[in-house]
Order: sequence, then C-alpha cells, then structure tokens
Amino acid sequence: MQGLTMDDYPLTLTTVARRAEQFHGAREIISRRPDQSIHRTTYSDVLHRARRLAGALADLGVGDGDYVATLMWNQAEHLECYFAIPGMGAVLHTLNPRLHPDELGYIVNHAQDKVIVVDETLLPILAGFSAARQFEHVIVVTHDEPAPEGMLRYEDVVASSEPIRWPEVDERQAAASCYTSGTTGRPKGVVYSHRAALLHALGASLPDALGISSRDTVLPVVPMFHANAWGIPYAAALSGAGIVFPGQHLDAVNVLDLLADERVTMTAGVPTVWMAMLAALDAESQRWDLGRLHTLIVGGAAVPPAVIKGFDAHGLRVLHAWGMTETSPLGSVCHVPSHLEGAEESAVDAYRARQGAAVPLVEIRAKDDEGVEVPWDDTTMGELEVRGPWVASGYHGGEGADKFTADGWFQTGDVVTINAYGCLKIWDRSKDLVKSGGEWISSVDLENLLMAHPAVAEAAVIAMPDEKWGERPLGVIAFVDGRTATDEELREHLSTDFAKWQLPTKFEIVEAIPRTATGKWKKTDLRAQFVPGGVPTAPGGSAA
Amino acid sequence: MQGLTMDDYPLTLTTVARRAEQFHGAREIISRRPDQSIHRTTYSDVLHRARRLAGALADLGVGDGDYVATLMWNQAEHLECYFAIPGMGAVLHTLNPRLHPDELGYIVNHAQDKVIVVDETLLPILAGFSAARQFEHVIVVTHDEPAPEGMLRYEDVVASSEPIRWPEVDERQAAASCYTSGTTGRPKGVVYSHRAALLHALGASLPDALGISSRDTVLPVVPMFHANAWGIPYAAALSGAGIVFPGQHLDAVNVLDLLADERVTMTAGVPTVWMAMLAALDAESQRWDLGRLHTLIVGGAAVPPAVIKGFDAHGLRVLHAWGMTETSPLGSVCHVPSHLEGAEESAVDAYRARQGAAVPLVEIRAKDDEGVEVPWDDTTMGELEVRGPWVASGYHGGEGADKFTADGWFQTGDVVTINAYGCLKIWDRSKDLVKSGGEWISSVDLENLLMAHPAVAEAAVIAMPDEKWGERPLGVIAFVDGRTATDEELREHLSTDFAKWQLPTKFEIVEAIPRTATGKWKKTDLRAQFVPGGVPTAPGGSAA
Repeated sequence: MQGLTMDDYPLTLTTVARRAEQFHGAREIISRRPDQSIHRTTYSDVLHRARRLAGALADLGVGDGDYVATLMWNQAEHLECYFAIPGMGAVLHTLNPRLHPDELGYIVNHAQDKVIVVDETLLPILAGFSAARQFEHVIVVTHDEPAPEGMLRYEDVVASSEPIRWPEVDERQAAASCYTSGTTGRPKGVVYSHRAALLHALGASLPDALGISSRDTVLPVVPMFHANAWGIPYAAALSGAGIVFPGQHLDAVNVLDLLADERVTMTAGVPTVWMAMLAALDAESQRWDLGRLHTLIVGGAAVPPAVIKGFDAHGLRVLHAWGMTETSPLGSVCHVPSHLEGAEESAVDAYRARQGAAVPLVEIRAKDDEGVEVPWDDTTMGELEVRGPWVASGYHGGEGADKFTADGWFQTGDVVTINAYGCLKIWDRSKDLVKSGGEWISSVDLENLLMAHPAVAEAAVIAMPDEKWGERPLGVIAFVDGRTATDEELREHLSTDFAKWQLPTKFEIVEAIPRTATGKWKKTDLRAQFVPGGVPTAPGGSAA
Repeated sequence: MQGLTMDDYPLTLTTVARRAEQFHGAREIISRRPDQSIHRTTYSDVLHRARRLAGALADLGVGDGDYVATLMWNQAEHLECYFAIPGMGAVLHTLNPRLHPDELGYIVNHAQDKVIVVDETLLPILAGFSAARQFEHVIVVTHDEPAPEGMLRYEDVVASSEPIRWPEVDERQAAASCYTSGTTGRPKGVVYSHRAALLHALGASLPDALGISSRDTVLPVVPMFHANAWGIPYAAALSGAGIVFPGQHLDAVNVLDLLADERVTMTAGVPTVWMAMLAALDAESQRWDLGRLHTLIVGGAAVPPAVIKGFDAHGLRVLHAWGMTETSPLGSVCHVPSHLEGAEESAVDAYRARQGAAVPLVEIRAKDDEGVEVPWDDTTMGELEVRGPWVASGYHGGEGADKFTADGWFQTGDVVTINAYGCLKIWDRSKDLVKSGGEWISSVDLENLLMAHPAVAEAAVIAMPDEKWGERPLGVIAFVDGRTATDEELREHLSTDFAKWQLPTKFEIVEAIPRTATGKWKKTDLRAQFVPGGVPTAPGGSAA
C-alpha cells in the first residue's frame, strides 16, 4: 500500500479547551449561585482558570491517570473541572450526591479517587461518606466563606498556579468516569476516553442529534454528575454555545426565570423537570418570554405524549432522546423524519413519543431470547444492543462483563422494537430495575435486603407507574409464618443501604411470590396483579 | 493509570456505508443522465450495488491499497464508487476531466492507478491520456450502449459479483486521493484516510459548518472530482440526506429545474455557478418554486457581496465557505455570529462576505514574513496555516514538503486577517496562482513555458479580476530584441501543456518586467499597472 494518510491529529478534550478559549472566549457562561444570585463569566475566563486549576492540581500531586472526584452542581466551577482534570491527563470522576452514602463510599474507593472537589452546600453529603476514603486533598468551592479546617479553598487553589499550557495526551487515555447504578449489584464505573468524549461532543452537536451551534445558549438542567449532563458541556464548548447553569435551584420557577432572562435557546432534563415546568407555564402562560427557546431535550425516561402536546401548546418543541451512562450518554434522538412530512398529526405525535433513531456512528440491533437478531419491522421485540465510538465495551476493572457481547456490543437491558428507519421504541426492560425521577433503583438489591429482615420470607420489587417520578418501587412481601412487620419498619430496615428516595413507596403482602419454572420470581404475574394495566404505562427510557 | 477506556471502534467509511444502507435505505438518490432524463434510486440500492462492485473489483484483481481512478460526473454510479472502492480497502482516486491531458497522464502514473471507471461521455478525455498509462481494466458507465472494445461495461461488472460484506479496514488506511493543481509545479496528491474522511463528514454536517440533516435533500453542483464535492456525498450518506446529482448538465436552467422539481433544501458550488443562476432567477423569478431551498453553499472562490444580496432578494441564503483539497476540503464556514444579532445590515453583509470561522476541530493561525504568529486583531495580515484531523500533513510521495511546517501545520499560501472570533478574511495569496472558475492555474508554470518561446525574453503572469470566472490569467511579456509573437501564437505555444481554459486571456507587452531586490518579478508593480485598482478585487477563496 502506498500513500501518505492524514496526520495523527489526536482527538482529545484539550482540542475543545483550546478552541473554546481561542474562538469563543467572549461567550458568556452564567451560573445561579447557591444564594440565587447570578454569576457571569466567559469561556475565556473559565478556560484560563481551568489551566490554572490544572497547574495547581499537578502541584498538589495529581498525576497522569489519577482520579479526581467532583461532588458539585451545574456551575462554572464544575465546567472548569471538566476541562482542568482531563486536560492535565487526570480522570474527571463525577459523583452523584443523590446516592446513598454507603454507595458513594464504595464508589470513591473503587475508583481510588485521590482528590475531591466539593460544593460548600454538598459538604453534608461528603460528611456521609468521607470516612470511607482518605482523600489526599478536599477542595471546597466556597463563595465567601473560608474552607473548613483541613480542606482547601477552591479559589485559593486556582490562584496558586500560573495557567499551564495543555500537555499532549493520547486520545485513548481515560478522560472521565461515571458510575452507573443501572445495573444489578454494586455501581459500575464507565470510563470515557478523550477520543470518545470528543466524538460524542461532535455527534451530540449534529442536526440529527441535539443540533448545538455557536448561536445557541444552552441550559442543562440535567446534572453534570449524571451521565456528563448528556455531553452538553463539551458539545457547547466545542460549538461555542453559551451555557446557563442553574446550580442547585432546579424548581420550575427558577429554571423558567433563567430560560427567559438569559434568552436560552435549548434546555435539557428528565421528564419530571418538564412536567413541573409545564404546570407552571399552564398556570401563568404570560409570565415568561420564551421566544428564543427552540428545543427542550427530554431524556432519562420516556416522556408522556401529553407533556409533548402540552409544550406544543406553548410553542415549545420537545425533543425526545435516549441514552445510558454506558453510551456517553447519547444513543438516539427522535426527530420527525422526512417521510412523515405532511403526515397526520396523530401519526407524528405517536412518532415523537418514540426514543428515536440512533444518532450517527451509534449502531443498534435487537436480539430475541434465543440471541437471534430481530428484523427492523417495528413489531418483533428484542433486547437492544448498541455499539459505537462512544459506547462502553466494558466497566472499570472488567466487572459486569456479561453485559457485553464477545463482538463488542453493549446489552442495554431495554426491550425494543425497531422500525425500518432505525427508530427505537422501548417497551420494557429485561433487567429488573426501577427508574425513578431519572435515576435507577435496583429491585434485586432491595429484594436482597428485604429478605435479610427476620420477618420476611420472600420479597420481590417491581416498578409501579408514577405520574411524577415515572416509576416507583413496589415491594411485594411474603412474611415468615407467624411474623409480620409494618411498612415503616421495612423502610427503616432498608435505609441502612438505600437513600430515602430509593425506598419502596408501598408494600403488598402475599402468601408466596409466584415463581417461574426455573425458580425465579415471576414478575409478570406480580405486575398483572398489582400494576394497573399489567405492564408499566411509562415504558422505556433508560438512564440518559 | 487504571481504567478501561471506550473500545477501539474504527472510524471508517464502511461505518457510513452500513448506516446509509441500514437506516436510510429508502431515501432517494436522483441523477440527471447524459440524455437529461432523471434516474431515481435509493441508498439501499446504491449501497447494495456498491457491495457488488466491491466484490467485482476484487475479482478483477484490485487489492488492499490499490488505486482505482474515476473520471465521472456527479451521479449515482459515482456514489457507488465512493463507497465500493474505499469500502473494499482500495483507494478512490477522483480525476478532474478539466485538466490538460498531459497533466492527467502524469497524475494517473504518479498514483499508479490500476483500474479506471469512466463515464461514456468522458471517453474522449480518457483517449487524451490513456496512452500514458496501461490500466489493468477500463470500466465504462454506459446507459444503453455496449462498452467499447477492450473495456468493461459498468453494469456487467456490478452484476458479476454477489454483494460482499464490508471487510474491517484500519481507520488510518488510505480511503481516497485527490490531486491538487493549487501548487507550483506538478500536481500533488492529497491522500485521505478513512478516519479523516469520516471525521470530515461529521464536521461538515455540524450546524456551524454546512448543517446537513436527514431532513435535507442536497444537490452538489460542485463536482465529485473536485475536492470530494466538498465532502457532501459522505456527509449526506451519514445523515441520510437525499442527494440530487446534476450529472454533466450544470447550466443554470437545468440546475434550477432540479432544485425546484426535487424539492432540494441545500446546494453547493463555486461562485460562477451561482452568478449564472442568479441571472436566470432575476430574469424569471416566478419560474421556479424554491420554497424548500434554505442554503446555497458557495466556496472555491470569494463570493461577491452583490451575489449574496442578489440571492437575499429571492429569499435564498448564501453560506460562504472556504477550504482546499488539502483540507478535505472544509476549512471554514461563515455563519453570522451571535454577537452580530441585531447589528446593522451593512455590518452583517460585510461579515457574510468573509470566509468564516474555522469549523470545529480545524485549527488556524497566521504568520507574518518573519514566521511570527500574528494577533487575531482583524488588522495584521499573515499567511494562513491550518491543522486538524482532516488536514493533510504531506503530499503523496513526500513531495512539496516545504508546504508543511515541522509541527504539522499546512501552509495555505493565503494571506489573511483573523478577527477575535477566529473568522477569516482572505486578502491575497502569497503564492502566485490564478483561480479561474474555482480551478487553479499556476502562473509560474505558464511563465516558464512562455519563456521557452523563442521570441520571449521575460514573462510574468498575474491574476486579473473577471466577473464570470473570478480571475483570469494575464500574461505580461518582454520580447527578445527584434522579435515578436502574436497572442494567438503564444497561446498555441502554451497549449502543448495547458488546457484551453488555463491560457492567458490577454497579453500585455512591456520593455522589461520589473524586479524585486532579490531579482524576482515584482508582481505588485505589474498589478498596479495592469489590474484595475492595483490588487485583485475578488481576493481570496482557495480551491475548495
């Protein structure tokens, strides 16, 4: 073979960092602070400070491949960490403050986090698991206060170093990591390479994905600790879109105020956020001028068609997306396809409630119970498998290898049909998980702990549709003969390992849990008995 | 360093081929045939036939890394070649039928093309250089006729093999090659890797670049033999945009008919095409319904502001782009930036005539005569250098190494200013080249041959602005004492090496050519003397 090919220009997040600072320096980055005040800065300042932070972290002993955790809301300082940590060759490890302290303790140890950056308002969360790990440094984002004893103040750290020049990093080097609870058993770490993160930012920006441009101003309600805020921070920086960060104030009025005041063009979050927002808009439709807002991206759980239509009435377009932590997370986005141009409204509406076509570079297939690929006939159901340059092919430490096929596909656990255009519809999950407010709850873990209660003989947990949260766990209990426990006692028993929002909302008592031929809980029977309609009414939508 | 990173999912054009066939199979691919009839097919058929063609080429002895030339207009069969040849691991080598036969002969030998696919209507062009190279096979696209003696009929070749399954190719393998005349001396080969071509397709599809989506129907007037039709074929296939190919019928009425009849949303070509189209539209503004057409991409040479405004009057948006064969070709696109929202029309108009901001992943810088980087102040001029994952870092065979810096940047030869937002304005070229109708003419080569004429003592060639072609070459001649030659004699002398359109339109006779201190032609003086205004009035715009 002859021929000199294009150079080995590396696909790294430092490319994004350099570009944002050089081309989009003047674009605003706006954050709502804990005291609800508005903080304004620019890409220029954020990236300059990120280069200082990177230098300071190196001075603090952070080296190539070291994990640095963040326990932070969506704000400019978190964006600085998003660039400083991978940019210096370390690994950005975002922590979800909503997890149970024991789970957080497990995660920071499993990842061997060396340093943690934490919001002042999240110090109580840190206190819940800090005994589990000896961080070399705890860096606290405070706005006026000094840092607590033994901790470093974020602003002091940033000020302590000159801005570095980004080093060359290999595109296959780990850039970031996020643990997913969307599996049975312990959370598992998904690790994103620089290459994957950059390609995801490109893919997410495409018109057939989220369509982010330099003319956009994006407000990510979806947290930066949750599947990288769906990739929006890097995509926005690559394109030079302005960003408006809501901080910890995610209630409808605060978000609507920001959308209107800061002339936001795109926003993204889980359905619960938009349901609250729709209610606020319906109540006071004249209060907010959202004339610039062209897209509400909804993911993390299936969005009810009524919500899509509800926003239609306000002239706001809902764009339905699907993904998982394992898919960086963008897997599919539902744009009304060209062949439905001029179709009846009902057909278009039905289409918009689907999870959409896989975005360019993401490959999909579905397999039946025998492992045979199902046709794209929109009728035959199968478990969705995905593959692509930003799809995990394994978990940190090689755990959960059974979720990946020998030929490199990730088995999502979602049961889908696929139409002739590669557009997904998620019907159910093959894995027994409950999805509440966009977050996973493992029914198997709940069952195991319930069955550890002395009064419980058998326990099964299934998902119940819930208007607000999408799904809530329902516990089905068979007591040991002659013994019993109250709902409150069961919940208290579970709270040693589970966060409050993860506990079953309700319990049903049965004589015995029905079993399949192989002795597993026959959850289809339980659903038929206890769930209205027999199957979840809000199927699908994995953890985006 | 711990951590399992994302998999090594290869970035290849077979990903695009698989996706187009699987997701966008039903989307139409429309071609205007030589007899002006309309041919309709789909991605499904094109990709199925491409897999047959790939199998057939292998049967004909084409192996990994072998060069297969195409001498073809824009049409479905060319798209099949675009996928079949790189998809099987060979190298797609597009030939520009407008070059001089000697130049084509040089190019096919330099690339060592093994097989050539040629349009029936271009057989006379092939005859002009076929003596220069012994192709193993000549495959002719005929529609009704049999192939000439000793050649294979394209349809027979396609029919001769079952469709193959795309093999795994390495992302750094050469996928395509295009020779550029945008250099002094002999044409030089730019080689595109699979990775570069795929990343370029992604980059070109971004909203800040061309913004191609599955809802688009694209008509590339820019030829597929010219810098890969600006990447549109692969970008459209990746997104699932419909494609309308104009074949060889590039006159305004034929193009306008297709734009209207096929409900095209985007089209792309050099300024000369649009000037003719604008004249036709101005003459018969009610004749064509272009209600779906949202973007006219103009590149290859600077577009006169009057043309932009002219299309504005018809409700059509001109998008100005810049690039070169060496940049795959997309380098920059001029979108009106967010900071000009609400600005005065004159300010916006002035901005739209610029070459635009480098597209994401393309890095730019400009250097002054001392090799020092100039500030992005929109005032200081420097020679533009570019770098990125789809920018060449060398030519085929290591030629022209002086055009690349030690740190991997390509020196474009364009003299630019850059504003604070990374938006380019091309003022002039540091290299002495003439750009006529989007194609390069080397003034140095013309001068050298002119000076080989027995009557010519000195000869310099400069660019004259030309309303239709952008630029035309002007020859400035000092005769040997006592001798002379007519314009026609000089042109005839040149036509041994140059195509007719490359010959100087006009000659001026001088006593002696002015020289710089170092003895070079002082072309600034010649421009001052012979060119209205002293400098080209249509500066910039390289070979996109």
